Amino acid sequence: MCRDLVEKLVQKNDSRILMAVIDGLGDISIEELGGRTPLEAAKTPEMDRLAAGGALGLHIPIARGITPGSGPAHLGLFGYDPVRYQVGRGVLAALGVGFKLQHGDLAARINFCTLDDSGIVTDRRAGRISTEKCVELVGLLTDVKIDGVETFVIPVKQHRACVVFRGNGLTDDIMDTDPGLVGHRPVPVTGSGKSRTVIREFQEKAGEILADLNPANFLLLRGFALHKEFPSIEERFGLCSAAVALYPMYRGVAGLVGMDIMKCSPEDITGQEKAVKRALDSGHDFVFLHHKPADSAGEDGNVQAKISAIEEFDRALPAFLDLDFDVVCITGDHSTPCPMKLHSWHPVPVLIHGGPQRSGYSSAFSEKQACTGALGSFRSTDILTLLLASAGKLAKFGA
Amino acid sequence: MCRDLVEKLVQKNDSRILMAVIDGLGDISIEELGGRTPLEAAKTPEMDRLAAGGALGLHIPIARGITPGSGPAHLGLFGYDPVRYQVGRGVLAALGVGFKLQHGDLAARINFCTLDDSGIVTDRRAGRISTEKCVELVGLLTDVKIDGVETFVIPVKQHRACVVFRGNGLTDDIMDTDPGLVGHRPVPVTGSGKSRTVIREFQEKAGEILADLNPANFLLLRGFALHKEFPSIEERFGLCSAAVALYPMYRGVAGLVGMDIMKCSPEDITGQEKAVKRALDSGHDFVFLHHKPADSAGEDGNVQAKISAIEEFDRALPAFLDLDFDVVCITGDHSTPCPMKLHSWHPVPVLIHGGPQRSGYSSAFSEKQACTGALGSFRSTDILTLLLASAGKLAKFGA
Repeated sequence: MCRDLVEKLVQKNDSRILMAVIDGLGDISIEELGGRTPLEAAKTPEMDRLAAGGALGLHIPIARGITPGSGPAHLGLFGYDPVRYQVGRGVLAALGVGFKLQHGDLAARINFCTLDDSGIVTDRRAGRISTEKCVELVGLLTDVKIDGVETFVIPVKQHRACVVFRGNGLTDDIMDTDPGLVGHRPVPVTGSGKSRTVIREFQEKAGEILADLNPANFLLLRGFALHKEFPSIEERFGLCSAAVALYPMYRGVAGLVGMDIMKCSPEDITGQEKAVKRALDSGHDFVFLHHKPADSAGEDGNVQAKISAIEEFDRALPAFLDLDFDVVCITGDHSTPCPMKLHSWHPVPVLIHGGPQRSGYSSAFSEKQACTGALGSFRSTDILTLLLASAGKLAKFGA
Repeated sequence: MCRDLVEKLVQKNDSRILMAVIDGLGDISIEELGGRTPLEAAKTPEMDRLAAGGALGLHIPIARGITPGSGPAHLGLFGYDPVRYQVGRGVLAALGVGFKLQHGDLAARINFCTLDDSGIVTDRRAGRISTEKCVELVGLLTDVKIDGVETFVIPVKQHRACVVFRGNGLTDDIMDTDPGLVGHRPVPVTGSGKSRTVIREFQEKAGEILADLNPANFLLLRGFALHKEFPSIEERFGLCSAAVALYPMYRGVAGLVGMDIMKCSPEDITGQEKAVKRALDSGHDFVFLHHKPADSAGEDGNVQAKISAIEEFDRALPAFLDLDFDVVCITGDHSTPCPMKLHSWHPVPVLIHGGPQRSGYSSAFSEKQACTGALGSFRSTDILTLLLASAGKLAKFGA
């Protein structure tokens, strides 16, 4: 309800907003850092300066205690309630490899697996075949043709691939065929109507092609999901938006909400600078900039690498700020604490600089200072409202 | 849902609550004040003493990032969710000039305007005629009689007036007749049934009366709204409430929730002191006291005037406190930052003194101290619940 309220109050103007996402930014107290977090230990003079002149807060990606995946975490940042706008795993997998889904496409994840002679699954990952092998197998599967749908098989990594069926009347009421445990047969394809027929035929034909190709002599399907188009960020919030992200997953989620996906060349932060400039030059007033390395370091449990990733972003920041944004937001999509090597539920620091703010509450960008920042703590979906307000893009509610 | 919960838990007692609203209280960091806000810069020994002995927090009038009008902002303070209880602009205009609306009345705003010979709007404000002229024109329009309804035309200011139709079966599905731009004809009256007939006839008859009175030779209507009675603050929260406000707008909103509107003579803060005393003497246990000047100063961007307005309130405060309230709340309805000269979305400091509180967290009443106060931050509608609780007027939920 409140989100619809925001949509009704949107008023356009020329102000330009940068939303920079340091993936997995948040962390917890780390002993080797004397109880500090990587963000607290990192030398970040640029972000500290913005913190002092702007306002800090903490965002809660989904709800207190809930750990988000990357998809829902980003949707929240873009102002889409991740509980209302759910994206199925098959769809996320396809988006994650940069596949251009269309409304009504049915997507699922594939695991190549090993069956014994009696059809029992003996390895759900086919001995973790190489990505090269995966690409080769996917090549063979392009021969699978099914009446009434187009079929796309896309390699992902090692034993992982995904499949997309395109045609009218598909539904996603299909259970996983992956039994989840070795020692069982693949689960027979359930569901109804066209989807069941299509998937049975796909599984049968793929099975024939793979039959002699040990260890990957079959495939398991899971996470069936129909792609539904979302109302775009332009329709909802009047923003002409662009995404500057190097990883397909984040380009995919940005594409879901209708952002223009900027090409980056070279594929590093200097390429991202050029892409942000091009985004502004071509009339965009909202740029989503995604920086991945802090999350990867967190997943690896590598404290020093996470600190370095944050410092690298801070050094690159002035070039982005020189592009003359009116409002700049720096945050993470979620926390990826190094001691956990996983995404977590911990609230994520948010920095907003530009527009009318209560400033002078903070001297540095950190989890601890964000906790007593002028913005308070709030759900991630409130960030976009605050940015629109700071940029003068929201009218008053009532007289 | 939570509000209905509060209503169910209400228990009456003799405790008396003062809710003092310093209009537009909140502000942002101001350079000429060394980054402080007017509230932080003002000398407010009385409020600081209450802050030290009570508890501070921040309220969010509507939702994060949403800037409220005065109507919805006050409804929130009175415990009425402003998104659920929406008040149309026509109704607010009528309330704003102190007109006593009845349930089912249809109200709209009037702009006197100028038409050229071919009926095209050449000035939507009729050259901003004087208020005296407006009163004179409204006087002429009292001759307009329409079958089946009573018609009331009330002057507001310059080219602005409002009209109220009273009768059975009126609806507010009427579009503005104001084209919003010069160079167009007034928009023909749309809508259905009785309302359309009534408004067409009113426009026609008014047009005949005004035809030769250049520059105000016609009128435009907008913000059609039906007045719906709200459940009263007494029905909902068991409070016998009184409003002590000098401006019609705030008396109007208080009237909407069923407060008794106290007369103030003289029309200044000394008159308000007497009115509050009379309210208590006549058995009220909840008094809403409205202080306007800080908001006006904020709208003017006049930092020193805002400081003075806050200091004036602080000097007046002991006289109110001497009246022996059990619980005192001092807050604003919204922020009106001087650098913006507008209402804003920034959270508003709240002070509660009296009743069992966690105190000693704060040494002064300020935005910054409110940010780390014992009450935390919350939606404006929670304030009334906290006051009821502090005054012992809420029973336990569950056993």
